[in-house]
This record gives sequence, C-alpha cells and structure tokens, in this order.
Amino acid sequence: MAYFPNIEKIKFEGASSKNPFAFKFYNPEQQVGGKSMEEILRYAVSYWHTFTMDGSDPFGAGSMIRNWDKYDGMDLAKARVEASFEFYNKIDVPFFCFHDIDIAPEGSNLRESNKNLDEIVGMIKEYMKDSKAKLLWNTANNFTHPRFVHGAASSSNADVFAYSAAKVKKGLEIGKELGAENYVFWGGREGYETLLNTNMKLEMDNLSRFYHMAVDYAKEIGFDGQFLIEPKPKEPTTHQYDYDVATAHAFLQSYGLADKFKFNIEANHATLAGHTFEHELHYARINNMLGSVDANQGDPLLGWDTDEFPTDLWSTTLAMYEILQNGGLGRGGLNFDAKVRRGSFEQDDLFHAHIAGMDAFAVGLTVAQQLIDDKVLENVVSNRYQTYTEGIGLDIVNGSTDFHKLEEYALGLTDIKQTSGRLEQIKSTINQYLLQAFAK
Amino acid sequence: MAYFPNIEKIKFEGASSKNPFAFKFYNPEQQVGGKSMEEILRYAVSYWHTFTMDGSDPFGAGSMIRNWDKYDGMDLAKARVEASFEFYNKIDVPFFCFHDIDIAPEGSNLRESNKNLDEIVGMIKEYMKDSKAKLLWNTANNFTHPRFVHGAASSSNADVFAYSAAKVKKGLEIGKELGAENYVFWGGREGYETLLNTNMKLEMDNLSRFYHMAVDYAKEIGFDGQFLIEPKPKEPTTHQYDYDVATAHAFLQSYGLADKFKFNIEANHATLAGHTFEHELHYARINNMLGSVDANQGDPLLGWDTDEFPTDLWSTTLAMYEILQNGGLGRGGLNFDAKVRRGSFEQDDLFHAHIAGMDAFAVGLTVAQQLIDDKVLENVVSNRYQTYTEGIGLDIVNGSTDFHKLEEYALGLTDIKQTSGRLEQIKSTINQYLLQAFAK
Amino acid sequence: MAYFPNIEKIKFEGASSKNPFAFKFYNPEQQVGGKSMEEILRYAVSYWHTFTMDGSDPFGAGSMIRNWDKYDGMDLAKARVEASFEFYNKIDVPFFCFHDIDIAPEGSNLRESNKNLDEIVGMIKEYMKDSKAKLLWNTANNFTHPRFVHGAASSSNADVFAYSAAKVKKGLEIGKELGAENYVFWGGREGYETLLNTNMKLEMDNLSRFYHMAVDYAKEIGFDGQFLIEPKPKEPTTHQYDYDVATAHAFLQSYGLADKFKFNIEANHATLAGHTFEHELHYARINNMLGSVDANQGDPLLGWDTDEFPTDLWSTTLAMYEILQNGGLGRGGLNFDAKVRRGSFEQDDLFHAHIAGMDAFAVGLTVAQQLIDDKVLENVVSNRYQTYTEGIGLDIVNGSTDFHKLEEYALGLTDIKQTSGRLEQIKSTINQYLLQAFAK
Amino acid sequence: MAYFPNIEKIKFEGASSKNPFAFKFYNPEQQVGGKSMEEILRYAVSYWHTFTMDGSDPFGAGSMIRNWDKYDGMDLAKARVEASFEFYNKIDVPFFCFHDIDIAPEGSNLRESNKNLDEIVGMIKEYMKDSKAKLLWNTANNFTHPRFVHGAASSSNADVFAYSAAKVKKGLEIGKELGAENYVFWGGREGYETLLNTNMKLEMDNLSRFYHMAVDYAKEIGFDGQFLIEPKPKEPTTHQYDYDVATAHAFLQSYGLADKFKFNIEANHATLAGHTFEHELHYARINNMLGSVDANQGDPLLGWDTDEFPTDLWSTTLAMYEILQNGGLGRGGLNFDAKVRRGSFEQDDLFHAHIAGMDAFAVGLTVAQQLIDDKVLENVVSNRYQTYTEGIGLDIVNGSTDFHKLEEYALGLTDIKQTSGRLEQIKSTINQYLLQAFAK
Repeated sequence: MAYFPNIEKIKFEGASSKNPFAFKFYNPEQQVGGKSMEEILRYAVSYWHTFTMDGSDPFGAGSMIRNWDKYDGMDLAKARVEASFEFYNKIDVPFFCFHDIDIAPEGSNLRESNKNLDEIVGMIKEYMKDSKAKLLWNTANNFTHPRFVHGAASSSNADVFAYSAAKVKKGLEIGKELGAENYVFWGGREGYETLLNTNMKLEMDNLSRFYHMAVDYAKEIGFDGQFLIEPKPKEPTTHQYDYDVATAHAFLQSYGLADKFKFNIEANHATLAGHTFEHELHYARINNMLGSVDANQGDPLLGWDTDEFPTDLWSTTLAMYEILQNGGLGRGGLNFDAKVRRGSFEQDDLFHAHIAGMDAFAVGLTVAQQLIDDKVLENVVSNRYQTYTEGIGLDIVNGSTDFHKLEEYALGLTDIKQTSGRLEQIKSTINQYLLQAFAK
Repeated sequence: MAYFPNIEKIKFEGASSKNPFAFKFYNPEQQVGGKSMEEILRYAVSYWHTFTMDGSDPFGAGSMIRNWDKYDGMDLAKARVEASFEFYNKIDVPFFCFHDIDIAPEGSNLRESNKNLDEIVGMIKEYMKDSKAKLLWNTANNFTHPRFVHGAASSSNADVFAYSAAKVKKGLEIGKELGAENYVFWGGREGYETLLNTNMKLEMDNLSRFYHMAVDYAKEIGFDGQFLIEPKPKEPTTHQYDYDVATAHAFLQSYGLADKFKFNIEANHATLAGHTFEHELHYARINNMLGSVDANQGDPLLGWDTDEFPTDLWSTTLAMYEILQNGGLGRGGLNFDAKVRRGSFEQDDLFHAHIAGMDAFAVGLTVAQQLIDDKVLENVVSNRYQTYTEGIGLDIVNGSTDFHKLEEYALGLTDIKQTSGRLEQIKSTINQYLLQAFAK
Repeated sequence: MAYFPNIEKIKFEGASSKNPFAFKFYNPEQQVGGKSMEEILRYAVSYWHTFTMDGSDPFGAGSMIRNWDKYDGMDLAKARVEASFEFYNKIDVPFFCFHDIDIAPEGSNLRESNKNLDEIVGMIKEYMKDSKAKLLWNTANNFTHPRFVHGAASSSNADVFAYSAAKVKKGLEIGKELGAENYVFWGGREGYETLLNTNMKLEMDNLSRFYHMAVDYAKEIGFDGQFLIEPKPKEPTTHQYDYDVATAHAFLQSYGLADKFKFNIEANHATLAGHTFEHELHYARINNMLGSVDANQGDPLLGWDTDEFPTDLWSTTLAMYEILQNGGLGRGGLNFDAKVRRGSFEQDDLFHAHIAGMDAFAVGLTVAQQLIDDKVLENVVSNRYQTYTEGIGLDIVNGSTDFHKLEEYALGLTDIKQTSGRLEQIKSTINQYLLQAFAK
Repeated sequence: MAYFPNIEKIKFEGASSKNPFAFKFYNPEQQVGGKSMEEILRYAVSYWHTFTMDGSDPFGAGSMIRNWDKYDGMDLAKARVEASFEFYNKIDVPFFCFHDIDIAPEGSNLRESNKNLDEIVGMIKEYMKDSKAKLLWNTANNFTHPRFVHGAASSSNADVFAYSAAKVKKGLEIGKELGAENYVFWGGREGYETLLNTNMKLEMDNLSRFYHMAVDYAKEIGFDGQFLIEPKPKEPTTHQYDYDVATAHAFLQSYGLADKFKFNIEANHATLAGHTFEHELHYARINNMLGSVDANQGDPLLGWDTDEFPTDLWSTTLAMYEILQNGGLGRGGLNFDAKVRRGSFEQDDLFHAHIAGMDAFAVGLTVAQQLIDDKVLENVVSNRYQTYTEGIGLDIVNGSTDFHKLEEYALGLTDIKQTSGRLEQIKSTINQYLLQAFAK
C-alpha cells in the first residue's frame, strides 16, 4: 500500500525543469570537490515534523491531512513507519532522525512505553534492511509530558531525573540497535521559567551528572555514536542552559565534558540567540566541535522557533562554506528539523518542502565549493592578517613578546596603515558567484 | 581636478566580468518590460552618506579617508559639490538627494545658514547643467542641531517650531530652484523620549499644522514636487510619530492630509518596525501612496539603523515586484540611503558599495519582471481567491449580502474545502527564477 | 458541590497580611477619586485561560490539574460554568469574558454548535441571576479550528467568510441575551502567513465588509454593546492586519468605521508591537478610542505572547494614569487575559495569580490617583509647553500663522532657550510615590 | 571655584522629603545586615558619562551644557578633574572610574598621550588626598580612535595590537599609581563586523595572548587590582567576542585564564544579550566570578545600549539579592555606567540622575535584605528541591548511582508527584515586600 500514491521517486532534472516534483539543483551523484552531493550533504528527514506533528499552534488545532490519520495507537505508529520509509525512498534521503515518542506512543508506565518502543524499533530495523535510509540520530523526548514541567535532568524533582535517565538509557540502546551515527541531547525543559524559584547551581550540576552517566552507559554497551548537544536560547523555557554554542561550551568545559560532546547546530536556534547560523557553525568548527546540523531557518521578524524549511540561499551558502572548511560533517548530517507551515497541510507539501530545502543546500554547497576553489575568502583573510606573519606580528603569534617590547614598538610607530575591510565588495562578489553558479 | 583619480566611469561588463569596478547586472540601457533599467530604477546617491558622513559611531571617531578632507567650512562644501558630480558621473546615476546641512555649513544664525545654502545651491545648479544627475529630493535636517533636542515641528518649544518652518520654507524654495522631483519629511526628532513629559496630542496637532503650512507654501511658490513622509519607528527618539506606513497613514487621514502626501519607504526602517520591506511597499501601494524608496538594508540581528548597502537579492526581488506592480515609482526613485561600513573607509569602497547596490536591484528587477511575465504569483493569488468570483463570494465582494444570508449559507455547508497555501513551493520557485535569471 | 473547596471568598486584609489568599492592596470598597476601586477597575476573568486552557505549549502537553477534568463534552462545559461562577464569587470580580468555544464544545456542524451554545448560554444566564458577575464581553473564536487556517473574515475562501459571519451573528445574539457591555474582535488569523500568496487589498476590503455587516446586525437586533478591535502585531500569523492601535486606526478611517469601534488594548500585544502598554492606551485615549483593556504582561526578552498575570507596578501605574485621564473605562473593564504559567498547574495558582494581578492594578490606581491629585505630571507638561500659550506659539495653535511669518520670526531669534526634559527626576519622583503609596 | 555652585552636598532626608536634591532612600550610614549602605553599595561615578560625554547621538550633535565647556585641551582636562571631585563630594560617592582618554586628551603620538596622562593622573592623585573618593577601576579606551577600526587586541593589524598593549600597560601603571581596586577590559572593538573577512581563531588566540601578557605585567609591577572582563553582545561591532558572561567564561576556560579574571556585569549589556540582569549576576556568582557591576538599565523596546540611570526597582531588588547572596561585591562596586538623556542637558540633571540611581539601588538593597532575612526565596527553593536531600535524589547528588539503578527506580514509579512552581505568588510576595519596605 502507498501513502503517497501520486508521487514517484524524486529525481534530479536540472534547473530548467518545470516539474515541481523534481530536484533542480540537488543531484545526489554530482561530484563536488571530490565527493558526491549525497555523501557531503547527508540529508535526513525529521520524523516528528514529517510524520507526527499535526499542524497545531498555540492558537490553532491540527490542520494536517495525512493518509495515516485513520489509524490510532500502535496501528498509527506502524502506519507512520510504513509511510516514513516510502517517503525516504521517494525523497531519496540517506538518513532519518527521531525522538522516542515520535515513533511509538507512550504507555501508561515506563515498562509499557519501552515495550511499544521495542515493537516499533524492531519494525524500523526490518524496514531499514530494504532501504538505504539510516538513522542519523535518535533522542529522548524529555519535554512534552507534564512530568517534565520543571525539567528533566535539571528537574527540581529527583523522580523525574530518574525517569529521564531511564528514557535516555533506552534511547542509547535503541541507537545501538539501529546503528545510529549520533545521539542528540536537546534540553527542551533544561532551563528555568523563573530564577526566583530555581537552584541553578544544583540544576547544572545535575545536568552534568546526567551527561557523565550517559557517556558511561554508552561506553558500557558499546554504543559508539557521537554525542551531540543542541543549543537553544529559550522556548519553551524562559532561559535554557544550553543557550548557544559558546554557553554550552562553557558548561562542557566546567564539568569536564568538552571531549565527550560535539554540537548539533540549528539555524533557527542560532538566530533566536542573536547569532547568524554561520557564526554558530564557525565557533563550533574552530573549537573542533561541529558535529551535526539541524537545517532549517527562522523568520528574523518573529520571536519564536518557526522551524521553516531552508530556502535562504545566502545562508545555505555560508553554512556550507563552514561545513566544507570543517572537512565535512563526519558522522553528522543535515537534518531537516523543519516543518511545513500550518497552511501547507497537504501531503504534497511535504515533498515540495523537502525539495525546496534539498535544492537550497545543494545550491549552497555548489557556491561554497566555488568560493573555496577560487580562494575568494581565503585570500581576503590571508591578506588582511598579513602583519602577523612577520616582525612584531609573528612575535605576538609565537608568544615571544611582552608588554615592554610592545610598548617600545608602539612608541616607535609614526603612523599605522590600515586597510579597508571591503565588506560591500565581498558581499557583491558572493552574489556574483551565486548568480553564476548555474549559468555555466 | 579629480577627487577619484583612479576610477573611470563604471560600465556594464556583464556577469562574467572580474573587474571590480564594473556593473555585472546593472545595464542602464537594458530594456525590461518596455523601459530601460535606468528609467525604471531611477537610482539616486545620498549626499550625506557619500560625501558628508565621516564614519563615526556612538563608540568611535570618524574613520573615512576622503580627498576633500583637507578643506573646511565653505571650501569643504564646495569641494564636496565638485566631488559629488564627479561621482554621479562615474557611477552613472541619474539622481541625488540631500539635506540642507549636508551641502552647506550652518552659519551662526538662520540668515547666515541661508546665505551659505544659496551659494552652494547656485553652484549645484551650475554643475547640473553639465550633468545628467537631477535632484530626486531634498529635505531639511531638523534633527542634528541641539535646538531640535525636543523635536522640530513637534517641539515643546514654539521658537523651534518657527525655526523648523523657516528651514522647510527654504528647503521648498531650493527644491523649486533645483527642480526637485520630491520633497521628503523624515521627522528624526518628531516623537518622544518619554511619554511622561509629553503632550502627544498637542505635538501631533502641531505636526499636522506644520504639514498643512508646507503644502500651502509649496502651492504658493509653484513647487510641484511630490510630498513624501518617511516613516521610522524609533531612533533617535524612543518613539517616532511616523512609526511605520500604517501609523503615518492613520495620522494623514486624521488630519486631512492623505491626498497631499505619499511615502518614502526605507527598507531598514521597515525591519526596525517589525515589517518586511515588501510589506511596507505593499501597504503603500494598495493605498496608492507609494512615492519613493530609500534603498538599503538592515541587519536583522542588530537593533539599530545600520543603513547598509542593499545586497539581499531575495529582498530586492520582492521590492521590485511591488514597484513593478505599482507601475513603477513615478516621480520617486531608489535612493541609496546607505553608508559604507566604518571599516570600509577608503574612497574605492564608495564605488564598490554603489555597484553592489545597483547590481542587487538590477537583479531584483530582472527576476521580478520574469515572475510577472510568467504570472507566477499572479496565478497563485487568482487561484487562491477564486471563490470570490462567483456565488456567495461574489455577493460578499459586491456588498449584496448580510449576516442573515451568510448564516443561512453557512448552515447549509457540510464541508469546507481548503487548499494548501503552498508557501514552500512558492519560495522554491522564486529561488529557481533567481538562479536562472542570468543563466540564459 | 464546590470546585474550589479549600478556598473562602477572598477579602481585603491590607498590606501587612500574610494570608496568601487575601487582597493586600485591592479593596473593592476603597474610594479613589470619588469612586470605589471596584467601579473603576471593573475586573474581569478570562474564561479561556482560567477554565478552558490546559497548560499545553508548542513543546508540551497539558499540565493543569482541574477538578472539572473528570467530565467531558457538554458535561465538562456545564462543570466549567459551575466552577466559573464559584470562582467569580470567591475572587470577587464583577465581570467575565468568553469566546464561543470556551463555553461550549463545537458540534459536527454549525447548527449543532449553536445548539450547544444555546444550552450553555441559558445556564450562564441562570447563574448570572444569583451572581454579581456580568458579561464584560464575548467574542467568536474564529482562529482555532482548521477551517480558519487561511483567515476568517479575511480568508481566501468565501465559505469561511460566511461561516465566520454566522459565528459572529450568533455571538452578537449571545451578547444581547447576556447583556454584554462590549463585543470584541480579535482577528487571530486575520493577517497573512506570507505576502507571496496573499491578496491583501481584497482581504482588507472583505474585513471591512464584515465589520460593516456586524455593525448593521447589532443595530438590527438592538444590541448596544460597544464594538472593540483588539490589535496584535503577529502570532499566530506572520503579520496581523490589526498590528497595533495606530494601524487599526488607519484601517477604520479608510473604511468609514472609525466612529463605530473603539479599542481593546492588551499590554502584551503592545510590547510585541514595539510599544509600551501606556503608549497604546495614550494613542487610543487622545483619539477618543480607548474602550477596554486586556490586563496582562509579556516578558520583554521573549518574542511570543506569554500572557502573564500583571505584576509590574510601574506599568500598572502608568496604565491606570492613562485610564484615569480617560475618565475611566466607561463600558470597558480590565480583563485578565492572562494565564498561569505551565508550571503553576494547581488550582490554587488561579487564585494566587488573580490576587497578584488585582493587587497590582489596585496599586497602580492608588499611585496614579496620587500623581493626579498632586498634578505631578500635569505640571511637568504644562511648564514644558508653556510657549504655546502666548505669542508665536499661540498663533501656531490658533492656526493664525504661516511659513512667511514663522520665517520672519525665526530670522529674529538670537538664541533659543531650551529646558531640560528631566526624565531622570520624573522617574525618581514616580518611584517615590510608589514606595510611599501604602506607607501612610 | 565651584562648577556646581547651586548645589549643596546631597544628604539623606528620608522618603517624605520633597527636596529634589536629597536622598530619599539612600542613607550611607544606614546599617543593613551588619554593614552600612555605603560599604555594601560602593557607588562609583563614571567619568566619561558625567564629565566627558556631550550628549551627541548618531543623529544629533552634543547638547550638554557644562560649566567646564569654556576650556579646551589640557585646560579642559584639568577643569574636569576639578569638577569631578566637587561632584564626588557633593553626591557623596566613595568611588569613580575612567578610561584613559576620558581624563586626558590624546597627543599626536603615544608618548604625548602618556605625558598628558601623567600630568592629569598626578593631579587626580593630589585631589584624592582631600577626598574620600577612590578609584574603583580604570581602563584603556581602545575603541574610539580610528586606529581601532578593526579591533585592538583582536585587530587584523599587528601594529594595533602593539599600540593597544602599550595603552593597557600604561593603564595598569596608572591603576597602581592611583590604587585602583580593579582593572576592566571592555573590548569595544574586540569582535567582528562580518565573519566574511575575519580570522576568528587567530583573533581569539591573540586576545588570550594579550590577556596573559596583561596578567604578567600586573604581577611584575605589583598591581594587585582585580582583573575584570565586561561582556557585551554587540554594538559597536556586529558580534563581540565577550558576548555574555557564559561566552566569556568559555573563552577564559579555553585559554587557561579562568582563575585570573572575574566579570564586570552591566545591566544593559545583559538585556541586549537576551538575559535579565540578575541572570548574568547569578551565572557569575555560582561560578565565583562576580567581580563588579555597571549599574544602569536599558529600554527593552530599543535595540541599542541606552545606558539609562537605573530606576527599575524590581530589577535593583533582584540584582541586590544576587549581590548579597554573593557576600557583597568584594573589591568591586556599583558603577553608574549611565548617562543622562540627551534631553536632560542641564548640570542639575547629573544630580537628579545620580540620586535616582542611588535611591533605586538603596531600595533594592533594603528589599533584598528583608527577603533574605525572612528566607522568602530560600524557603521556596529548599522546598522545591527537597527530593535531592534523601533517597534516590541524594544518590544522584552524591554520584552514587548510574543509569541501571535509575532505570530500575523509574520502572518502580507509579506516579510522580509534582508541585506548582508558584511563580505568580512569588512575584506578588516580592511586590508586597517592595511596597512595605519603607512603610515601617
């Protein structure tokens, strides 16, 4: 049976194609810098946005129309698995991601929930045998159920800490079972609603204890997936402890965890924290902590997490520039943590949206590789910092100077020759690369 | 003598040109929809950002290096006029814009200031004879001098109201003298620092009295330029009365001025007010009040007016779409109310920046015209609202229904058939147009 | 049967009371400026936040624990009515407000929904006989159901327009039946998700047609409640047509509706639009359009509508100052459009929260009346604008001057004497009033 | 000679005083929790805002009227020193703070600048002998001069690095000479305008080298002042490396500097970074890095650094709560990094503003101490986290559990008992303390 009966497998047809159900720029087999687009981009479908969410918002009920809606309970869960593999195949992605409760309904207690999970995980494992789709990462949803109202690993209630641990334990086992490349921690309720009733020190201490135990348990069971923290500044809490990459970096360093975790960086979370997407990628990269990416975009005029499918080509270009500079994403990937708008409630929109996002990052990859091939930004930077390659600059970099020598040098300076930063010209050049990328 | 001795007249060399001092996409003579790019785009140079500002910011002194900096007083003013016409010619723009104090230094009293203005205006008039550059608009700077600390036409001090009126009177005379196409009101201090000491009703009443007197005086002297209000939400004041287009529209209607003014819409002011640039253009357009445009862009992550040169091609495309739907800008134009970054302090940056902006809007124009030619958005919209062309929908539009009939109709409805808004597909389609625009 | 068995009627016990279930500052009978606190403040309970909402958020399921949760369907609706009147009585408020679907479940079609409504409205009417609580306003929820996904009166689908009209028709009938003081329009989906697929002109035209029909129908049935527009800038839509008071004012003027509507101003909507609460109140007041108030507060660091109970005393003071300057709220009131936090899920929190808000506005009222009695701000303002009471200033206000006379006057000015705006001193003075308000 | 001839020394007159030039709540000798207000609050005047800045903003020229304006050059610098000590004495503060260029004009080269500094520092040292005012901290202004256009210690130009080092070397010597309690680093240009031309890794490496050399030099000369980093997210740069406390904490840890620095936390910088003031104080406190405070406030509706005098009593209360929990500020203090509004241009406003701020923090101190004395928040927190004091919770805290034991425990849980967070009640309680603080 087909859940998307009107859709054939999406293929690359090139920029001039008018077929809405075709890739115009994403060609999985296209070689870019020595690898195929598919290998570099490592696209993943988010199970929750594509198969579970119903389009509700704080002011509206669900709007999505799905062919699996006629089922419920475990039947619904199974129908979604079937639909999901049909979708992965048709949209031609190599990866998917899920939270535990996306794939199986919670039971009336933990044991029942785990039983439901086991059944669905078994089914997914079977389906994976006949599909190229692999598990990029899984995670535990420790934020939706009311038991997490005051946090999970940072809950004010020790029972909830224990419950959360049990869920992550199960998640690590599932990750191992399904061969997950990574395991993600997004602390949806790990933060505070108000400082006034919060013991932030205890909560952060507990969070670190939780992470240490997770690391230990993964080692124990031989799960070798990469551990990822996904920063977000706020929402649903007023303040989340993993505010942004730098904040989480401080935390990991403070608690001796910096070599155990990398980051899963989401574009929309970056902008909610006041940073560009590329800033967060860059910060992680130069600290050797760029693990994976949640590929979406926000609306800069809206103050909440809109999780839109990425279509901003400027942003995908700069993101791919960072990723290529990083030598790729390693075991990470580009997960479309993105949902169709509430008004895009037809099943076809799931395809339109993924095509939009996959094309947008394929464009970004193409343009970024050309910028790198032509050393466009590399030359800008090397020229700009040239003074650090000789004389006093080299002494500074080598650590062979001090305030005495620097003062002496400065007293001898008559004029300091500065050079324009050339922002406008650089932006214009990138625009030219973008507009010419598919004109050849 | 040349102020930009190393620069030749900037010419169109096409997308593949590697010459940084050439247009890649702006070809003044290129026909688009039956007119030349030059006629449609009507580019203007902002005198203040290009010839007067020095690169200072709230934390830094001026950084700009300019060949006219060796002069001061009226000599400096004259050098700037010379440099400006050399620049207009070399960058090949048909228009320029200025505030009174941009072109001539203020004297120790109003009479002296006016004398200085007369001398420079005479000089500009002479230079205009040998240049194609015309005056898109002029205005009075009624915000920099400390006398305007509490406002100009909305000052708490009647003397300042009078002084402001005298400056606008002079401005209208200058506009007439130089054949300005428009006269702009940007109320830099027309707002409040705090409501606590403010008589907002009196201030708004006075503002309307001021506008009425300006309209009367323009009529009296036969100045036929278009009157434009430039909305901005805040900065330098805490709240400006012309917050956004809709707010100023309310004001103009309240005070019987709606048929006397149109809007000069700035991209960065739009986003500071929480709107997209295209929203403000659209609102003005459907109210027949789109007058002119301040073409720049802001940084969505920064909370102040950055006045960057426009390089966001998505934004220029949607802006040009509105402008083309408006039948063009009439007597208005695209004024680069944009400044090179403080770090872009070399004279060459003035050219790089204008080329960046002129190319960006030329791209926007090209893509927008293709979207219109192919009825891309027109078809989306006409399909989406089809129900208003017949039956109950047509009755609604024709005003031939009421709550009784509508209720009767609604009671008879069994199911309401909704259609996806298709946001993701539409965005993807626009991206394809953008990437293919120069691939032909 | 009691839904709040542990709570007695809340009484005023004064500032020193340590009883958490007592008013410390709100004394309904306390006279302030010649009226009782109860008469001036006209508090209302929001049915939806207090009896219907379950504490869910975009990342979490419902958390609220309510004694009426054991029921469902019409039984649940009836239990809520019982609980609501017990609550009004115990918290001692004179008013309540509701949307249609708050009080009665929607049926499978409009006829059934109306039948459900009729039954519950009848029940409410009975309960009102034994309660002092009256209906401040009611409204139609034309945003939650997926049929409103593309708007209601501004829907792209004429059937939805008709359906919305039928719901408002019913709402007006209910308002008349229950003696509502006002009828509110909050256009939760009256806006757009994207301009790209939107006919904004048609949508705004239709919105005005809808309002005109509503006005006509109210007149026809003799419903004399005040009509109120509630502005909000965004959320759930990307852009809402009633963005803020000024925007809605422009709309009402454009469509000949300005004398038919006043505004229901919400604090959190004000700040989301970039304004202070008092600014929106002030703007409405000086345009004689201040109708009613949704008393809540937002978190200035969060970008969504948090609808918190108001506890910011500075804000309640400045709000009450505007309301007192307005001569009170007339038929409007202070409706707590505020919800307990998701973490405040116990029934007691409903009392704590209402007490917090009622005390906060009682403090605001007390301080504002003292500021007025002592002419604190009145004197600041009258001194500051003194120049408009004589000479050239008076000529300006009287309209007996023009640009010629003003220029002549300005040419004669040697120095303009400015006076400090004294912001810091004024703020400090208000703080003193606040801190001394209950020290006497 | 007196620069403030109309002002007597400001004294405490109590809440009922109507004298605008008196403290109403700040009584330096008042004992609070065993120390005097003066000892706890350690107020400081900012030299730059009070004696140097002229009221200019990006759209306006200087507006301030100062009795020392008749001087210029070194005479002006000396007049400011005289005025400053008159001011410290009259406003009765124990501390002041300055940047190098606030107190002495820059010469045509570094040697001249240092000579000017030496002369003024000598003069200040003399004045300090007869005044109780001490130097809370000094710093180098490495951001105003155009040489710092691309940064100082993070400049792309090694000459600028050297020049910056020489200035900080001099600053440390001045700090030692004048007995400064602290030395502050605010990296006004330590960040980037755009990532596109930036080698962020090199810049951060250099920044750390700079800090290490500063630490070494201080040790060498025996300067024992506390070293402080002052975080700010953006402005003047697009992104500053010391974005917020957590970001700077990550940096300090990465570069082995965490035990050498504490933080100087500014309220307005906190809110620009998306945090409350108290959040930043709290984060620093629990990491034992709360050094000093820049006491001001921002406008949450404005996106730039407004540096207003603090008057928000809620905020000063929560700030003082953190400071008292920290055991006070140690060698730090409360520096009014706050400027009178451009419209508050009279000298009297300097007194009004400082009184406003000093009273506001005195209120905050008083309320916070009462909250502590009554264990209001302490009890909330200890009750809320009670589960961590026994059983599984204690095992978690003691590190004597693991995922196996936690899962086993969770499997045995039937129901998790949660407790309300009581946000609304807590806020209401704090309001009661505030309103009653001076009613006793």
